[in-house]
Amino acid sequence: MTDPRLTRLAASLPATVPFVGPETMEREAGEAFRARLGANESVFGPSPKAVAAMEKAAAESWKYGDSLSHDLRHAIAAYHDVDPAHVLVGEGIDGILGNLVRLTVAEGGAVVTSAGAYPTFNYHVTGFGGTLHKVPFRGDHEDPDALVDKAVETGAKLVYISNPDNPMGSWHDGATVAAMLDRLPDTCLLVLDEAYADFAPEEAIPDIAPTDTRVIRTRTFSKAYGLAGARVGYAIGPVDLIAAFDRVRNHFGMTRVSQDGAVAALADRDWLEKVCRDVERSKARMSEIAAGNGLRALPSATNFVAIDCGRDGGFAREVMLALIARGVFVRMPGVSPLDRCIRITCGTDGDMDVLAETLPLALEDAARNVR
Amino acid sequence: MTDPRLTRLAASLPATVPFVGPETMEREAGEAFRARLGANESVFGPSPKAVAAMEKAAAESWKYGDSLSHDLRHAIAAYHDVDPAHVLVGEGIDGILGNLVRLTVAEGGAVVTSAGAYPTFNYHVTGFGGTLHKVPFRGDHEDPDALVDKAVETGAKLVYISNPDNPMGSWHDGATVAAMLDRLPDTCLLVLDEAYADFAPEEAIPDIAPTDTRVIRTRTFSKAYGLAGARVGYAIGPVDLIAAFDRVRNHFGMTRVSQDGAVAALADRDWLEKVCRDVERSKARMSEIAAGNGLRALPSATNFVAIDCGRDGGFAREVMLALIARGVFVRMPGVSPLDRCIRITCGTDGDMDVLAETLPLALEDAARNVR
Repeated sequence: MTDPRLTRLAASLPATVPFVGPETMEREAGEAFRARLGANESVFGPSPKAVAAMEKAAAESWKYGDSLSHDLRHAIAAYHDVDPAHVLVGEGIDGILGNLVRLTVAEGGAVVTSAGAYPTFNYHVTGFGGTLHKVPFRGDHEDPDALVDKAVETGAKLVYISNPDNPMGSWHDGATVAAMLDRLPDTCLLVLDEAYADFAPEEAIPDIAPTDTRVIRTRTFSKAYGLAGARVGYAIGPVDLIAAFDRVRNHFGMTRVSQDGAVAALADRDWLEKVCRDVERSKARMSEIAAGNGLRALPSATNFVAIDCGRDGGFAREVMLALIARGVFVRMPGVSPLDRCIRITCGTDGDMDVLAETLPLALEDAARNVR
Repeated sequence: MTDPRLTRLAASLPATVPFVGPETMEREAGEAFRARLGANESVFGPSPKAVAAMEKAAAESWKYGDSLSHDLRHAIAAYHDVDPAHVLVGEGIDGILGNLVRLTVAEGGAVVTSAGAYPTFNYHVTGFGGTLHKVPFRGDHEDPDALVDKAVETGAKLVYISNPDNPMGSWHDGATVAAMLDRLPDTCLLVLDEAYADFAPEEAIPDIAPTDTRVIRTRTFSKAYGLAGARVGYAIGPVDLIAAFDRVRNHFGMTRVSQDGAVAALADRDWLEKVCRDVERSKARMSEIAAGNGLRALPSATNFVAIDCGRDGGFAREVMLALIARGVFVRMPGVSPLDRCIRITCGTDGDMDVLAETLPLALEDAARNVR
């Protein structure tokens, strides 16, 4: 039953959640996964220096975190060579996207994204009563021209693109993304989600001034920095928009441990480079494993690989479920034709051994279940 | 300048923030506080067992936290002897209050609280476009009858009370709070903020069934458990209302370190008892210090003490500023006549020595500045 005190909007919201977590699946299965390769976490872990900083901060957790995340914000600003007034720190990109939607999308307001793109963004748009308009991927890439066209057509407040993208791992060069801005109406903001930028080739990163009022870019410590469980994301955008978050954000919402961990993680460039090498090795191994099973691994500029299972979404789903049943946590895209793929996060050599062992068996299971 | 893409509501919001953090003040002053007694943190720290759990979890921070906070939620449910379906875990009471307001208050919706009560609750109400109706304290207590009267009069969706209360430290017996429910309209929810309940006498805690649909109670790990910087709060309420949070909350918003720290903190009852003894010793010492300076410490069922400075708000404000200038972080109530007091958090013996040293000097400063 719905609580009678909910607002009309709240009462209308679906009870579905963007993602079921692996712990939930493990509790249901009654056993732990052998390989945790479904949420694009970094199995290579955070920098040992970040871990040390977090261990040290634990005993200081009686103090609220710094409401301005001053040290972290300034470190991020220095790293990107922008003024700190352009930088917002938040509780992961998820938290930042929620507040961004809250700030810009009134009930009924139009928002544009790609069909099959980040579900949590859609969750926030729906949650604040916005209307989603979805554009198909084209050739396993998000389609910049179609996104802008749809934004113009619908009078959207926000248009979302991830580059490199999730769930396919593809990317556009930076110039293509930057060119979107020139066709964007003044009343529309580009949300450029660069969660996977740390893994991407340099040419994938657009050269956009932080003062550019047409775009907000999001980054995270959840992927390459290996701190998904610490909930630290940030945005770079125009000063007025960044300042507006102060009107709605949870000012003391960052944990002290996470603030200190992120500062240390950002400073350890060697670790980031090592992680990127580990990711490349895992991607190469995944391509081999896929090929050895007659499947194709799509090119990826991220820490995961979409593996084309060669048939339709029903078959790929059976492959995914069979891998999960055999203790390998993976996920898959939600819409056709992307859903001919399963999405596997890069892992350790041991994780890849488990994948090499289980994938042929999962393919057999799937072939049996889908005639 | 306001970003032109903000919603009408967002553009109308004030740029003020509920609290300026002590780190911000330290950066402005160019030096660290000698005593940090302004935010009702627990200077006695978290349980060493909680610290150990957090240290252990740090290296596991590459994994997202459990989106259901299963272990923590079940531990809280067991502690309160309620079904876990009645328990919501969130990013501090602040985060929970924000989502509660979002779920229940549409633009223009009436909300009732006490003048001078928790500013962050008011911040959320304003932030979602609600209209605040404030009832005065009576005799340094929140006024249950007047709160309910105002809720009836305004058709409020929410009525907020803290028990024990912040900022005065006073409390009502549980029966008085429970009696509010009998006069509450069906369309109104009582928000019973029990952030300080762990310090309160047993008779201050109302006997209310978790199934009671008229009330949601909030608790926190930020006060007695000494984990303000870990951002863990929880609510106990009717199942339908608790479930509704799943429609809007940031599902992976809890950090893994905080989840594990809170589970360990909750289990260490000895530490909680020790902290409560430390708090009592500090309160006794603060009463002595106040009396030695011709001031009166109000009775407190919390981990802070409101000290009546014996004159008006302007004078108390000068005392507060003089303490801050002398390196003692304290705060004060925001409205008359509560603002004749300054509010000082319980501290270590060393903190109390600093207070004993600086308070007479601050009173001299204030007397000089206010003629």
